[in-house]
Amino acid sequence: MKVADIGEHQLLKIIQKYCPSDIIGDDAAVLTTTPDRSLVVTTDVLIDNVHFSNITTKPVDVGWRAAAANLSDLAAMGASPLAITVGLGLPGNVDVSWVENLYQGMTACLQQYDTPIVGGDVVRSPVISISITAFGQVYPQKVIRRDRAKVGDAIVVTGVHGASRGGLELLLNPEMGNHLTHAEKQALIGSHQRPQPRLDVLPHLWEVLDAESQFSVAGMDSSDGLADAVQQICSQSGVGAVIQRQNIPLPPAFHHWLSEEKIWEYVLYGGEDFELVLCLPPKLAGKLIQKLNGDAAIIGIITDGTAVILRHTQRDKPEALHSTNQSHQKYLDQVLTLDRGFQHFSS
Amino acid sequence: MKVADIGEHQLLKIIQKYCPSDIIGDDAAVLTTTPDRSLVVTTDVLIDNVHFSNITTKPVDVGWRAAAANLSDLAAMGASPLAITVGLGLPGNVDVSWVENLYQGMTACLQQYDTPIVGGDVVRSPVISISITAFGQVYPQKVIRRDRAKVGDAIVVTGVHGASRGGLELLLNPEMGNHLTHAEKQALIGSHQRPQPRLDVLPHLWEVLDAESQFSVAGMDSSDGLADAVQQICSQSGVGAVIQRQNIPLPPAFHHWLSEEKIWEYVLYGGEDFELVLCLPPKLAGKLIQKLNGDAAIIGIITDGTAVILRHTQRDKPEALHSTNQSHQKYLDQVLTLDRGFQHFSS
Repeated sequence: MKVADIGEHQLLKIIQKYCPSDIIGDDAAVLTTTPDRSLVVTTDVLIDNVHFSNITTKPVDVGWRAAAANLSDLAAMGASPLAITVGLGLPGNVDVSWVENLYQGMTACLQQYDTPIVGGDVVRSPVISISITAFGQVYPQKVIRRDRAKVGDAIVVTGVHGASRGGLELLLNPEMGNHLTHAEKQALIGSHQRPQPRLDVLPHLWEVLDAESQFSVAGMDSSDGLADAVQQICSQSGVGAVIQRQNIPLPPAFHHWLSEEKIWEYVLYGGEDFELVLCLPPKLAGKLIQKLNGDAAIIGIITDGTAVILRHTQRDKPEALHSTNQSHQKYLDQVLTLDRGFQHFSS
Repeated sequence: MKVADIGEHQLLKIIQKYCPSDIIGDDAAVLTTTPDRSLVVTTDVLIDNVHFSNITTKPVDVGWRAAAANLSDLAAMGASPLAITVGLGLPGNVDVSWVENLYQGMTACLQQYDTPIVGGDVVRSPVISISITAFGQVYPQKVIRRDRAKVGDAIVVTGVHGASRGGLELLLNPEMGNHLTHAEKQALIGSHQRPQPRLDVLPHLWEVLDAESQFSVAGMDSSDGLADAVQQICSQSGVGAVIQRQNIPLPPAFHHWLSEEKIWEYVLYGGEDFELVLCLPPKLAGKLIQKLNGDAAIIGIITDGTAVILRHTQRDKPEALHSTNQSHQKYLDQVLTLDRGFQHFSS
């Protein structure tokens, strides 16, 4: 059954199953907010064959990922989710089951955080488009911003980076996974299909900061890549950074799976890991990592100036990515630029 | 210059001019809400050649209309606007000036209500899509809902209906306007290109209701047509209605421009007038109309049952739309159905 076979009315009835029943049908949703908090709002648009593809992603995973990306934007601001709205553009030949699966994926991700879909719009379109707006709330004094990094701050990343890109590669080229165990493959593919927004980090962060009766944290999520996140924070804060490459947590399978070059391409520029990149005083950073049971690491430090330097200690067989390879160098330094991690509009 | 000629970064810089400078660049916007109000959220998606067309609508008008439609949804809930977000899908061959004009149109409409664009997303897409989410706030006890109409309520419409559809016709077929004055044409075309959300009605409505120390109002906007609005309110409230056709305010030009049949097609099913349709006790309805200086009218009454009857008193030359034309009838009654005013997905 195609969406063209049923009316918009019937399609809305199907979608309604995934929304709180008292909301759909009116011109807008009404939400209750907590009085002492600020409202946080973020919008993402996903287009078929640009941001997702039926080849690598089932509709249920498209839904999960779309919801996760928006919740990650809220987490990146220090906000707890309230609700999302979904604007769908659909060609008439899309299966109704595709739409149902999409909503199943979104609600599966959202339910973990008690976050309802409170409305939206469904329209005809020559291409599938999914536009999600997420709302959250945050204590005004606890908004995490990109432009607040200070010289001397430790740079903390949660989780591992590169896993989502690795999973995508396995979906595109399954034969690439011949040397991986089933569990390793599943872990990487799971990272790509079912990323988790790091809302779980926030209570630990508040605990660490409250104990010090100070709020000093800058940050964002790494949805556009780890390199991009560090660059964005530094450029908006007017600071530089030195990142110790060997301190960046990687998926365990990477070392026996990928070349050194591919590892760092995936880790730094892969994107869509939806982890948090936070800058805070080293003492607090240490406490946060402790609270997260090691599911985070200090990867570098904020410095004077504007250069973002990726430093890697020389190994037995030095392999510089794009650095000059001078034999007297103790460190191989690479200056990160935004270019590789940044998706150009015309690309 | 096409959007493919400049990077996404450059395009965002252009768009940024239309947004408060402290917001764009972070993962989400942070808004301050008023403690004792509820949050109201609404989303609309517009697709090129489905919801707008370069033939009838300049980008500045596309922007105005998109913003107006969302503000009208807020007005329909009794809410004051806080902000909007904009998700844009753009093919690479779209002129950068098109995007600028779109934002100029949106901000021109929004500025009337001190409503900023607080963020969004810009992505590549094979078709232009515009997804707007608007946020407002409302006193929880003053939410206007569709399902609260009560038997005996007067049905009030603001403004005139059919003007937007008339304006569209003049844009599609300019020769149709040969018998209209320049001012008449401009008024109709203006109604189509620059509709005004009826946020101005709300303070008057609260004044009327507060004076009676009661809140009894149902309603919605007439964006999908006047017939649709009355039908939606009645079906969701489990009531019927009798509408007196001759009481519906029309654009003055209609009587010497259009056939009787066309008049009522435009007025009842034209849509996009963005007026309010409100149901409230007759005494309060009268007071509201007085406060609006006649820019509103009582067009009918809420009745028992479920039928929505369009009644028109017989004239010298009776012309029934779809009614049986029995000579002994004093009134020509037409039972409205949702079908004509409802845009089917497959249409």
